[in-house]
Amino acid sequence: MYTVSELQEKVNDFISKNNIGREPFSLYDPINYTLKSGGKRIRPALVLMACNLFSDDIEKAIKPAVGIEIFHNFTLLHDDIMDHADIRRGNPTVHKKWNENTAILSGDAMFIKAYEYFLDCESPNFREILKVFNNTALEVCEGQQYDMAFEDREDVTENEYIRMIELKTSVLLAAALKIGALLGGANENDANLLYEFGRNIGLAFQLQDDFLDVYGDTNVFGKQIGGDIVANKKTFMLIKAKVLAKGENKSKLTDFLNMKNFDRDMKVQAVTGIFDKLNIKEIVQGRIQELNEKAFDYLDKVSVLENKKSELKELTNKLVNRIN
Amino acid sequence: MYTVSELQEKVNDFISKNNIGREPFSLYDPINYTLKSGGKRIRPALVLMACNLFSDDIEKAIKPAVGIEIFHNFTLLHDDIMDHADIRRGNPTVHKKWNENTAILSGDAMFIKAYEYFLDCESPNFREILKVFNNTALEVCEGQQYDMAFEDREDVTENEYIRMIELKTSVLLAAALKIGALLGGANENDANLLYEFGRNIGLAFQLQDDFLDVYGDTNVFGKQIGGDIVANKKTFMLIKAKVLAKGENKSKLTDFLNMKNFDRDMKVQAVTGIFDKLNIKEIVQGRIQELNEKAFDYLDKVSVLENKKSELKELTNKLVNRIN
Repeated sequence: MYTVSELQEKVNDFISKNNIGREPFSLYDPINYTLKSGGKRIRPALVLMACNLFSDDIEKAIKPAVGIEIFHNFTLLHDDIMDHADIRRGNPTVHKKWNENTAILSGDAMFIKAYEYFLDCESPNFREILKVFNNTALEVCEGQQYDMAFEDREDVTENEYIRMIELKTSVLLAAALKIGALLGGANENDANLLYEFGRNIGLAFQLQDDFLDVYGDTNVFGKQIGGDIVANKKTFMLIKAKVLAKGENKSKLTDFLNMKNFDRDMKVQAVTGIFDKLNIKEIVQGRIQELNEKAFDYLDKVSVLENKKSELKELTNKLVNRIN
Repeated sequence: MYTVSELQEKVNDFISKNNIGREPFSLYDPINYTLKSGGKRIRPALVLMACNLFSDDIEKAIKPAVGIEIFHNFTLLHDDIMDHADIRRGNPTVHKKWNENTAILSGDAMFIKAYEYFLDCESPNFREILKVFNNTALEVCEGQQYDMAFEDREDVTENEYIRMIELKTSVLLAAALKIGALLGGANENDANLLYEFGRNIGLAFQLQDDFLDVYGDTNVFGKQIGGDIVANKKTFMLIKAKVLAKGENKSKLTDFLNMKNFDRDMKVQAVTGIFDKLNIKEIVQGRIQELNEKAFDYLDKVSVLENKKSELKELTNKLVNRIN
């Protein structure tokens, strides 16, 4: 069995050795810029780990693994245009460094390149693997659409939020595992169990992200705490707080949500204070724990020896219990 | 054998009966809007005609044919953002009717939908068909990149221009034919001959487009004549004129290209006048004829009975000799 870091290194190695593109380089430069700007390579590592559960030979999974990573980075590239984000991983985003047209078109080409890596893969499950990838890609777009639509809505429910993060974040982690399993020769049942494992881990991962934005340690988190609160982002925590708040908490929360001019720190502190009174911290932690347990129930059922699952468990524990 | 119009109707029928999408409909509405706004369905008709050359059963080619049409419409959708185009087929473009974010994201989803239609196709050549489609999609992006880059360049050569339109326009027509042939069970050689046929027809088609923009009949052409001249678009004709012009023609042409404020009709008339003096009309018509003949040489070599090729010949003659 390979360790997580060995697999991440394999992916980084492949990406750094394989420059994408040909003429016109102006189309491909932003792709290489995006792909080589770092990132934890979680998704390709999941492909390789799932493959490794069923097969000692993981070489055949490397190209699809990189394909998943290219796809993921493509979604970041286009999302950054839509979200008007200027910085990604400490560097200017593509539409800032180049321009919007380049970001749109290089993004499109990047997506096609992700497919190219899949089309080279040898597997008796070739068609199914492509279908999982394709349907997942569509779901990720649906998630982004919901995310944008939620910005203009005040009545987003908890279930709607969970569905949105499922589409935007979870299904790709789930698909990475399922595709890896299929490449490794898993049967349909095991592949689906791993999908469900990934789906639940993905939800926990995103809730942890929301959690850290409020309760993270600035020194460790690496970015300013409270960004979601400042932007009134309808996270699980805010949705929950809006439902639970009564009396003074409710009116205070409403005031802060409607406030046009405010001191950043003051708003973050005040809303966090309301969250504290409503036990939002414990509620979200409880939910993360639940999802984590549900995920591991699925993993337990996967029909490979327990000791083979240790690396996968370690990586996912790290993802869900991470502090940054 | 099916006639061209029967095939175009089949495609239109399929598209009008199959609404694309599920929730969130806001993601899919722009896709249906784009796809159902008309268009001549040339590319899907080419898929079906090529299939029909080798097989009486064309049902298996319908989904990939529609996939090609969806892809083509996706490129128009994203190109319209990049070109800041407000109108397409008489209707507001997606980024005008909705907004830019919607146009980017719905375009992405549209591209994924194109793949979905391909992934359902049953053929022993499944992988090869996908590779042709995928590589062509990449080439179309490359063509668009060159097209945008040429706007800022004054030294675009004839060969560069031909390569650009080959990528942006021809290869998709070529790929439509090759994919159709492979779906119909053609051998590799016939499939490649049809590709070359389509590639040359595509070049002739685009040069005809450039030609009509200058020498078309306004009443028939359906849009104002001279748009390319007004915008100094580096078409085959302008590139040729810049090379051929000497003395007074050269200085006059240069003046008009550098003119910031001008009367539209005056510029169109003057530049057309220079083209006339340089025989640009005859030169481009000659080139179209050459490409046409070259294309038909390839078609002649395709190993099916001559009478089976008549519909394909008729459609392509219409495309290349069209007056609008």
